[in-house]
Amino acid sequence: MEICQTIDSFRAVLAEARRTGRTIGLVPTMGNLHAGHASLIDRAAADGHFVAVTIFVNPTQFGPGEDFARYPRTPTEDLELCRGHGAAAVFMPTVDEMYGEKGVTTVSVASLTGGLCGRSRPGHFDGVCTVVAKLFNIAGPEAAYFGQKDAQQCAVIARMIADLNFPIRMVICPTVREADGLALSSRNRYLSPAERQQAPQLYAALKLAASMVPQGTTDANRLAAAIADHLARLAPLGKIEYVEIVNPHSLSPVQQVDRPVLAALAVRFDSARLIDNMRVEPEPSGG
Amino acid sequence: MEICQTIDSFRAVLAEARRTGRTIGLVPTMGNLHAGHASLIDRAAADGHFVAVTIFVNPTQFGPGEDFARYPRTPTEDLELCRGHGAAAVFMPTVDEMYGEKGVTTVSVASLTGGLCGRSRPGHFDGVCTVVAKLFNIAGPEAAYFGQKDAQQCAVIARMIADLNFPIRMVICPTVREADGLALSSRNRYLSPAERQQAPQLYAALKLAASMVPQGTTDANRLAAAIADHLARLAPLGKIEYVEIVNPHSLSPVQQVDRPVLAALAVRFDSARLIDNMRVEPEPSGG
Repeated sequence: MEICQTIDSFRAVLAEARRTGRTIGLVPTMGNLHAGHASLIDRAAADGHFVAVTIFVNPTQFGPGEDFARYPRTPTEDLELCRGHGAAAVFMPTVDEMYGEKGVTTVSVASLTGGLCGRSRPGHFDGVCTVVAKLFNIAGPEAAYFGQKDAQQCAVIARMIADLNFPIRMVICPTVREADGLALSSRNRYLSPAERQQAPQLYAALKLAASMVPQGTTDANRLAAAIADHLARLAPLGKIEYVEIVNPHSLSPVQQVDRPVLAALAVRFDSARLIDNMRVEPEPSGG
Repeated sequence: MEICQTIDSFRAVLAEARRTGRTIGLVPTMGNLHAGHASLIDRAAADGHFVAVTIFVNPTQFGPGEDFARYPRTPTEDLELCRGHGAAAVFMPTVDEMYGEKGVTTVSVASLTGGLCGRSRPGHFDGVCTVVAKLFNIAGPEAAYFGQKDAQQCAVIARMIADLNFPIRMVICPTVREADGLALSSRNRYLSPAERQQAPQLYAALKLAASMVPQGTTDANRLAAAIADHLARLAPLGKIEYVEIVNPHSLSPVQQVDRPVLAALAVRFDSARLIDNMRVEPEPSGG
């Protein structure tokens, strides 16, 4: 496994892989890798690619009050995980290597980034899009792998790829969860024991809403209210930031579950802000 | 010469060229090609590339009051010129092909786009950067060719390429001029005979300023004033929009010509807005 810290050396490794006929599968991460990231690497390898993992805690996607400084950095364990899952190359640049001469160029996806997480994290998705565009241009991958856990990020990047004609296939992999349902996230480690105990209720609340649809509740407001009620009762340490039922592509709010929708939520515990989401399908109409 | 109207067919032509070992030289244009564009094609061919010319009057870089509708469109003559200069492929997409599902993604280069032409054309450079990023991703060229005539555009795109890590060599070619000094531009055809007669004074004014530097005038304000004075006297049909002496890369105003600078100006005639610029070098310091 090649470990690269400069753009040039990473490009050289990928160019050599191409010379031997390989295609590139890119797995962009911020490190502190867990089984969710591993599933992306596994999928990229299963798709036959030369798997390139990037590990970069991108400062431009963190807001002023956010956790950039304390975001967990675990390079030794990360490299071990990458190796164990068959990654072929890992790119671990410094901030200076990525943004040396301070960048003044921004990629923005309007209309998908104002709601949900974008409401409380202004500028976050500009930072995400810009660094992902940079990584796309650095690596030139045939495919790029992202986790459904970050549903808004997936929708935004899908739109950026389409709008800017990146010749890249985006593969979105299912959220990986703990046995009790908590979606894997590097920020779970911030949780206090009591918060950790309540955190699985995010997933439980989403499952509850999904189960109401086949029973005839298709009104989005009622579903959102049921989620909020569940969280208020069973995860009282968390403050609900949003619960929304939206179109999975445009992220616009929907009124009725008459086609597949995304139920998405963010909950702020004292020590960590957690997000989760679930695709909810309408019942097939009787015929 | 291959003529392509869809992204897919253009990509297929370029992929075939690559299979035969060719590199791609991209010449992005808005059509109505003249000797300035021809010089870009010639240079790309001389550099050994498979030369791909794009012809697309990009609506997103025109402001509400600007000349998008009447911008000259001369596809037959354009194709003849491309063929005559050895272009290998021409991409002429419709607006729908480029922006079908209305794009919501924008590429912006802050700090280089607020001054000079950006002041009177808000959003213009976002439109330019976004369409150029699209064309880069569609064609994946090794090199891209632009004319020095559009100096701010060159600085902005150079910055976008650097900031977003496009693996593309940008080649900036000298401004091509009429015998009387007027920089070639598709908009010259809008000029009335009287305006056309005065238009060469833009270049004459820039040359005047450049000639003052070796004679000891290095104060940027005095140079700009000399240009403005020249224009007021000899091109009175034109209204000066700006005359500025700036750093050629950052486009920030400079006070002294103590290193190479860019003298840039825009003049608004009744029937057309013209721009021109000249790189001005300081005298080598005596020893």
